[in-house]
Amino acid sequence: MPMLKDPSQKYRPFAPIALRDRTWPDRVIDKAPLWLSTDLRDGNQSLIEPMDAAKKMRLFKTLVQVGLKEIEVGFPSASQTDFDFVRELIEGGHIPDDVTIQVLTQARDDLIERTFESLKGAKKAIVHYYNACAPSFRRIVFDQDKQGVKRIAVAAGRTIKRLAATAPETQWGFEYSPEVFSSTESDFAVEVCNAVVEVFQPTPANRLILNLPATIECATPNHYADQIEWFCRHVDRRDSVIVSLHTHNDRGTGVAASELGLMAGADRVEGCLFGNGERTGNVDLVTLALNLYTQGVDPELNFSDIDAVRKVVEECNQLPVHPRHPYVGDLVHTAFSGSHQDAIRKGFAQQNPEGVWEVPYLPIDPADIGRSYEAVIRVNSQSGKGGIAYLLEQEYGISLPRRMQIEFSQVVQKETDRLGLEMSAAQIHALLEAEYLRAETPYTLKGHRLQEENGTCALDVEVFDKGESHHWRGIGKGPLEALVACLPVRVEIMDYHEHAIGAGSHARAAAYIELRVEGQRPLHGLGIDENLTTASIRALFSALNRALGQQASIRAA
Amino acid sequence: MPMLKDPSQKYRPFAPIALRDRTWPDRVIDKAPLWLSTDLRDGNQSLIEPMDAAKKMRLFKTLVQVGLKEIEVGFPSASQTDFDFVRELIEGGHIPDDVTIQVLTQARDDLIERTFESLKGAKKAIVHYYNACAPSFRRIVFDQDKQGVKRIAVAAGRTIKRLAATAPETQWGFEYSPEVFSSTESDFAVEVCNAVVEVFQPTPANRLILNLPATIECATPNHYADQIEWFCRHVDRRDSVIVSLHTHNDRGTGVAASELGLMAGADRVEGCLFGNGERTGNVDLVTLALNLYTQGVDPELNFSDIDAVRKVVEECNQLPVHPRHPYVGDLVHTAFSGSHQDAIRKGFAQQNPEGVWEVPYLPIDPADIGRSYEAVIRVNSQSGKGGIAYLLEQEYGISLPRRMQIEFSQVVQKETDRLGLEMSAAQIHALLEAEYLRAETPYTLKGHRLQEENGTCALDVEVFDKGESHHWRGIGKGPLEALVACLPVRVEIMDYHEHAIGAGSHARAAAYIELRVEGQRPLHGLGIDENLTTASIRALFSALNRALGQQASIRAA
Repeated sequence: MPMLKDPSQKYRPFAPIALRDRTWPDRVIDKAPLWLSTDLRDGNQSLIEPMDAAKKMRLFKTLVQVGLKEIEVGFPSASQTDFDFVRELIEGGHIPDDVTIQVLTQARDDLIERTFESLKGAKKAIVHYYNACAPSFRRIVFDQDKQGVKRIAVAAGRTIKRLAATAPETQWGFEYSPEVFSSTESDFAVEVCNAVVEVFQPTPANRLILNLPATIECATPNHYADQIEWFCRHVDRRDSVIVSLHTHNDRGTGVAASELGLMAGADRVEGCLFGNGERTGNVDLVTLALNLYTQGVDPELNFSDIDAVRKVVEECNQLPVHPRHPYVGDLVHTAFSGSHQDAIRKGFAQQNPEGVWEVPYLPIDPADIGRSYEAVIRVNSQSGKGGIAYLLEQEYGISLPRRMQIEFSQVVQKETDRLGLEMSAAQIHALLEAEYLRAETPYTLKGHRLQEENGTCALDVEVFDKGESHHWRGIGKGPLEALVACLPVRVEIMDYHEHAIGAGSHARAAAYIELRVEGQRPLHGLGIDENLTTASIRALFSALNRALGQQASIRAA
Repeated sequence: MPMLKDPSQKYRPFAPIALRDRTWPDRVIDKAPLWLSTDLRDGNQSLIEPMDAAKKMRLFKTLVQVGLKEIEVGFPSASQTDFDFVRELIEGGHIPDDVTIQVLTQARDDLIERTFESLKGAKKAIVHYYNACAPSFRRIVFDQDKQGVKRIAVAAGRTIKRLAATAPETQWGFEYSPEVFSSTESDFAVEVCNAVVEVFQPTPANRLILNLPATIECATPNHYADQIEWFCRHVDRRDSVIVSLHTHNDRGTGVAASELGLMAGADRVEGCLFGNGERTGNVDLVTLALNLYTQGVDPELNFSDIDAVRKVVEECNQLPVHPRHPYVGDLVHTAFSGSHQDAIRKGFAQQNPEGVWEVPYLPIDPADIGRSYEAVIRVNSQSGKGGIAYLLEQEYGISLPRRMQIEFSQVVQKETDRLGLEMSAAQIHALLEAEYLRAETPYTLKGHRLQEENGTCALDVEVFDKGESHHWRGIGKGPLEALVACLPVRVEIMDYHEHAIGAGSHARAAAYIELRVEGQRPLHGLGIDENLTTASIRALFSALNRALGQQASIRAA
């Protein structure tokens, strides 16, 4: 394999901000930010197959249902599809009164004019414009100096303000993004933003959104938080400005950057559902929201049926959500490991339905986001008794006694080791049946008769053994004692459990017997029947046959 | 849609640590940590289909190739497959001298004994043991008080030390994890770890690994960093201890937690390739390593052929890597948006091969991790001229002049809007041919003859028009001027470009003409031929026919 090149000459580390008196590490997020979904813009522009009008409308309606109040719906000056969609939203009356649509435009007069055309008749709209301020963009892409960049931002701001004044029927909001804020000199970003503040003259009642994109994530997330705190301290009219975050995930820390950015004083977050967006994606609004939720903070977004939301997003984006995606992935509430399963089983058993959520390994109650518990515990070769016991109990009402759990888990593990595959509850149950309920040799029970009188029990059993019928009769204080007394081998009952499966007239009894045949280690048997005595007798034969079968196979070997 | 429940009664927020004098936010990671891969243990136990022996061996060899020096290879006391695999590694001589295998065991004497059995004959091995210290586990899972938990850790440590002493042929390392460190009272975690330190008596030359798992991520990542810094300050014999991180990703901030944890003083990171592992996965070692790399720090892991590593991991885990996964996902070096493509194209053009990497929107040079540039720019309805121009240039050597890029991008966008699909370079090229090279009505050029003398040029062209043949003759200073002079319509050449495609005897010429037919807006034409003059004449007819064709369709409308 070729060697990774020496990076020290090729890549430049980020330059830390001098902010020794930062306060964000002492803060905790205790309320939801303002949320903006850019699924229909930043998300859409990153798709292999961008959404058509029908998909856009479907996703828009889902975003509204989830509770988003600000939705960036497109880049109408750059795409006819987007333009037409904005028109359809407005003319079709699809925008609820409490929802504001937002559109993006570059800072060019012709594009801004086209943008305003697209918004004609909207009740509420945010015009979001941007230009590139970062040094590499100034030099490589636009060949502009700092003053040129600032002039573009101011001039476009004036055009926007002027055009907005000509359409007073719309309640206008304005947003400016100094592009690649995270790579821009902090003082220059503030300088440009302050010039934009000067244009729009925002007030506390009518705030200007200043959106600070980490368009490309290029530092540890604490660095972005430092940048945000520095910005909040230095921007003019802080009380008239909404500081907005827009993080991407190039270094896998987009969620962290938004969280630390909120701690650093920001008011608003832009992102996409499940982290869709250019390259590694925008920050995932679902994860951010549910991270708040599991800290006891109302996220003001509703993911109580997370799988329904996921389905829409997957179909609109034509991209899958990964099985390990936080909160929503297929495997994230699943435990395969034995010790994890054991802990989860105990946690469920002790969880107070009204109390604080405390089930180990589950940071959220799956039921809160519309997930069932079915998938929580799954069994493979890495699983132990806990998961097996849990599945049999949940799916079949069968509660194996503890030592029998250990015994049966070895049977299951041998099978999963052999198969190399996960086993479903049904497969485990089939294995239980094969191992215990069909242990009918050497002795097949054909029938029994029981007589009880004055605390004494007489039991007659009819047994088949290699084609021959036998009749045994025993006396004891109970049916099991009577049965033990008449067996042709000496056995000892070590333990006995029984419980009902189901309720009412359909209830059946499950009986578990731990039996020691003389000279052998104890083994378990299981019997299930509508009649409790029959279940007990079957359980004893199950254990006896298993013990004698093992003896036989040892002799044969 | 049902409402998300009020979380404030159900979920308890994390309790911040009083560490106002924390130093980690001022630190920058400037060297690689020690890495441990737990792909074959924590990763494997989380799979729907755990790996068989062949897959384990394949992944082990890949981990070695990548440069991992510490590899956790299994949980031999819990799984026969794992036990057998450890034996195979040792007996088959598969472990290079500079690689140390590690195995996990619970803190129980019988399991520890079985663990040592599995390691017999290993040259170097780390025995990693754990017990649960977190309050909810003490109460719900084990019904133990603090002293009981500490006693378990100490007793198991003594057993491990004793058994190691009986096998001096192995160079032993020891690791202890206070389970769910992140949810354990910090002072109690230190108390238990100090008791373990007391058992093992580590020295700076023979350090004890204390691994601090965020087994379930349950707070913002700065909180984990505070816990790590607090731990590093309070643990005994800090210089004889390796502080190890083990983060999961339940809140989507596992990478951030490990990074901030390293800043807080940790020495080592446990994780899996591409973030496999229980539920939301372990921290992704690849992302962590390449995050260092793009900061100019040698990660001491080699991902110069990242797709080969990914292929092995995907096949062994039977789980996909997401298209947006940092560094390795199919879409992460891809730009669909027009302005991004434009910036990337300019960045590539200006990038000094020996200089600092500065291509916009690409935090890493794809070539460094074995990726080609092919996938970087892809064209859909969200794309602009930049991507189209880039693809035609990269794949076909065709460099459209700037205004022609704008003209042709509208042709492409109409097509992508219509299709709703991505367009490949070949499809774009076909569209270019259809639009420009096959613009042969009304005038189809059948042939030409050129005579030059004393700077004057006489051109004869034979043209077909609606089945009739025409012969035109013009005089000018060059062939184009001569051609313009003899056309039946008045035209003006606004701009002209030409360049060679390919080199040597196979080279062809591409000619681009911007032409204004009287009374119309300028339009472009393209001609490609082995002969430069022929290319120019074809380009002029291409532009002329497009202009007259549009005129015709305007008249028809």
